[in-house]
Amino acid sequence: MIGPKLWKETWKGLRMESTYSSCTILVGISHQAAKFLLILLVFFTFLQGRSGFSGFGPEVKPTKGALWPRPSYERRFNFSFAIDPKDFEFQSVGQTCPILEKALNRYKLLIKNAVRYGKVDAAYNKDSPAEVDATKLPALRVDLRSPCEEIPSDNMDESYNLTVSHFSSALIFMNRISANSIWGILRGLESFSQILVPDKTGRMLIMDGIFIEDEPRFKHRGLLLDTSRHFFSVPEIQQVLDGMAYNKYNVFHWHIVDDQSFPYQSVVYPQLSLKGAYHPELAVYSLSDIENVIDFAKDRGIRVIPEFDTPGHTLSWGASVKGLLAQCNTTGEYGPVDPSEPNNYVFLQRLLIEIASVFKDKYIHLGGDEVEIKCWEDNPKIASFMNKYNMSRNFTELETYYFTRLLNITNLLNLKPVVWQEVFDFGVELDPKTIIHVWKSEPEAMKPIVSRGYEALFSSCWYLDHLSETWRSYYHCDILDFDATPEERALVIGGEACMWGEWVDETNVSPRIWPRACAPAERLWSYGSRFPHPDTAARLEEHACRLKRRGIPTAPPNGPGYCPLL
Amino acid sequence: MIGPKLWKETWKGLRMESTYSSCTILVGISHQAAKFLLILLVFFTFLQGRSGFSGFGPEVKPTKGALWPRPSYERRFNFSFAIDPKDFEFQSVGQTCPILEKALNRYKLLIKNAVRYGKVDAAYNKDSPAEVDATKLPALRVDLRSPCEEIPSDNMDESYNLTVSHFSSALIFMNRISANSIWGILRGLESFSQILVPDKTGRMLIMDGIFIEDEPRFKHRGLLLDTSRHFFSVPEIQQVLDGMAYNKYNVFHWHIVDDQSFPYQSVVYPQLSLKGAYHPELAVYSLSDIENVIDFAKDRGIRVIPEFDTPGHTLSWGASVKGLLAQCNTTGEYGPVDPSEPNNYVFLQRLLIEIASVFKDKYIHLGGDEVEIKCWEDNPKIASFMNKYNMSRNFTELETYYFTRLLNITNLLNLKPVVWQEVFDFGVELDPKTIIHVWKSEPEAMKPIVSRGYEALFSSCWYLDHLSETWRSYYHCDILDFDATPEERALVIGGEACMWGEWVDETNVSPRIWPRACAPAERLWSYGSRFPHPDTAARLEEHACRLKRRGIPTAPPNGPGYCPLL
Repeated sequence: MIGPKLWKETWKGLRMESTYSSCTILVGISHQAAKFLLILLVFFTFLQGRSGFSGFGPEVKPTKGALWPRPSYERRFNFSFAIDPKDFEFQSVGQTCPILEKALNRYKLLIKNAVRYGKVDAAYNKDSPAEVDATKLPALRVDLRSPCEEIPSDNMDESYNLTVSHFSSALIFMNRISANSIWGILRGLESFSQILVPDKTGRMLIMDGIFIEDEPRFKHRGLLLDTSRHFFSVPEIQQVLDGMAYNKYNVFHWHIVDDQSFPYQSVVYPQLSLKGAYHPELAVYSLSDIENVIDFAKDRGIRVIPEFDTPGHTLSWGASVKGLLAQCNTTGEYGPVDPSEPNNYVFLQRLLIEIASVFKDKYIHLGGDEVEIKCWEDNPKIASFMNKYNMSRNFTELETYYFTRLLNITNLLNLKPVVWQEVFDFGVELDPKTIIHVWKSEPEAMKPIVSRGYEALFSSCWYLDHLSETWRSYYHCDILDFDATPEERALVIGGEACMWGEWVDETNVSPRIWPRACAPAERLWSYGSRFPHPDTAARLEEHACRLKRRGIPTAPPNGPGYCPLL
Repeated sequence: MIGPKLWKETWKGLRMESTYSSCTILVGISHQAAKFLLILLVFFTFLQGRSGFSGFGPEVKPTKGALWPRPSYERRFNFSFAIDPKDFEFQSVGQTCPILEKALNRYKLLIKNAVRYGKVDAAYNKDSPAEVDATKLPALRVDLRSPCEEIPSDNMDESYNLTVSHFSSALIFMNRISANSIWGILRGLESFSQILVPDKTGRMLIMDGIFIEDEPRFKHRGLLLDTSRHFFSVPEIQQVLDGMAYNKYNVFHWHIVDDQSFPYQSVVYPQLSLKGAYHPELAVYSLSDIENVIDFAKDRGIRVIPEFDTPGHTLSWGASVKGLLAQCNTTGEYGPVDPSEPNNYVFLQRLLIEIASVFKDKYIHLGGDEVEIKCWEDNPKIASFMNKYNMSRNFTELETYYFTRLLNITNLLNLKPVVWQEVFDFGVELDPKTIIHVWKSEPEAMKPIVSRGYEALFSSCWYLDHLSETWRSYYHCDILDFDATPEERALVIGGEACMWGEWVDETNVSPRIWPRACAPAERLWSYGSRFPHPDTAARLEEHACRLKRRGIPTAPPNGPGYCPLL
């Protein structure tokens, strides 16, 4: 049994988290009383160990109605509310829009589905709530204070308040989710849905009276999915997006093409996917597929940032675009994009114009990682080009030339470029608004980036393809763990968990992402220590089961355990 | 393109494997002609590298119509047959029985399903067979030469011959699968189904003329599934069994109960699962569930060997059986079964009588691993018991006493016991017909076992829960890799891949088993080197896609790739 827990929160002061099963409240009672209760609890636990049977059953017992990721401030009260999903309503009392209406429908459905687990939970967790003496909560007010924005952006406001308190008093009018922005409402609805615990009868959901004040720690909380090494269908991508929404991720970094395949179906260059995709009809994303993904993501407050990685990682592009790639003179192999060929910039500009109109986000990821210069070195045409422009043979100037021209295009298109760290490390001169994405170094590698005024993203510690990593090792990562001024820290806009596609396809991608990507989600959303609180594993045990029940294949987070499904 | 390959087979002499796409045949032509063809091939490959686009696309291109596991002897001819699944028939020309009839229906369905992939394969693999000049094969004879056995056993005969040769000549009557036993027919049907390659039209399946003579290298080819750390439903177990059949595994080692939970629903001791299962109704195996599993396995030539691991790993048993477990005097913790308590043998006998009647196999796995003697040491009752019988304090005699009494029971029930290696290593005196299962040592650890005349099973190198292991590392393991006489080698009856359940549930178990467990399957079925042939990866690439198309979630075997599904 997870009892009430106290811990110190360095940012926000004292905070309390209790699970549903605890019926006492420690806040507001004297220290002595608390001490007495603690002794009682220890004694009770001791008795259990002697007479009952510990040691068997799940490795970690799940919490009940705890939140993942943890909110900035959460206070639970010593009274309960009951919700009957058959007649429960969200009452929209502020602004509204289709995004809000669709979200209310989704969460009503999730609540309806959750109640079905009451009976099976009761047989598994002997301490499921009975039909307690709870006030019925017939509705929750939803108070959106500003008109909806059309799409989520890098400065969306995701903060919200959630209050469900005394119902009998004048405070009744406080019971609501409120937020300045639709994106905050979405986060608040997710939190509300997580608090509800089905009762033994399977008819009602029980919740603690609660007050939550919440906002994200970082504004950029991304998950990268690679759809080039293996192709994922739109429904499979939507399943990932659903999982992201349940973890308050807000950026889907779509690593859509790479060396192995080019599934993006371009209108201006249809040959790219006809020749470069694994399958010209079955393994491609049409414009309407992409629109579906973007709409689905938008409804969940998730941005879609495409990555078109150049000049390396472009072999599949070369299958259709003659002269795009530099060829090694001696071996005939193909290398990165040939920066000396003027036609290539015409091609890239036409393609990027299309991409900018298809993907609606202001950001575009331009890649720039792992550029193997072998075929630049071993190419007479490039040599004479470099000679003509007096470039040094270390190729920094050649890459600078390439990225300058590429960034001119994205500038024209009013896009904000993101590049992998090598572009910065290599010394390429970059437009000051470029974001640098660190993927292979410790957080210290962000120091030179932010000290020169660039914004930075961090991913090194959250590579989901590293099988030896666990949610705990991901949790230990703090992306601000380097010496920096407050101004420099403010330039670290967030991080991304990366699901590279070499070893995952539709059979295993979801349980490889979840529950491990829940850890970066909490580190990016929540303030607090990198050392998991003892209760963290129990919260994740509950959250993993929640994800499974919502249809997201999620692997066991903590070893042996059980999640009754129907 | 995977061209014709020649290699030397140490056991069986020269053998040839060609994939469907090769239209030349090297067997029977002169050395000089072969040399010329080889030069031509190298030149062609070189041309491809210069003009075409290598480097993108899948990491390993799949074979077409190759077998997994590789048969003992396989010869392909330079002519093809075409099958139209709409009117193709198996003609049973020998004995028959329900197992055979059900198998023929299953494989007819698999063939029907395979043909659908012709069109999508053609777009992915440009070298899919066209509507070639192939003789139509309207039927295949199935010649079972002896009456069916009722259940598969440790001395079942799994050998078979498969011939599909000249149709126009008198040899027409040779076109058949033939075997002495129903189990051989099942293996032959699986091989036949793997040879068929859908053509571009999606209407016909094309196959090489072929002669196969096949038999397993080891008689015990097992896969262990742990249903205690996480519960798996009967359909989930059946999916594993299907995957096993497609890889010619023949033993399902059902590690059904353990410390964490007791899902076996006993009739004589219903409290065991009522108190010890994760869920008393949803996470249990009723007698009829078990019957379903055994029947399903039997139809596929797979034995079901249950493991009821004692005296350790029994915490979940202790939840309902008072006095079963030895309690530590100082801590109150529970340890292994208390061997000093006479009632425990009454309990075990009654339970084992039931188990023997429920599971029909002659073998029973009695566990015996990881016995932590702490609570035997720290227990006054056990101390006085050992004193009374003049036992030494190193507990070998106490464990010998326990296993002697346990083996007396299994002897009475005419069961053949299997135990984990510790029981042998610990020096417990064992009945000579006991099989010792090595799981934590190199193959050399079998030397003392077989030299004392015990049969041995090996699993150490095939732990599927070890995430850093790949199919290649599993392939490198040879269970006969120790110094032994031929008589001793003959006592190594086989091995098992082990899927322990701590970190797998229904969301990830299948892609964690497959394709990696395909490697032990081939090492146990096929003669040949532990070093994968260059073609092995390509065969596995095809086989993994085959498994996916048959509904077995199978992870990518070789990195980036594509398997068109419908």
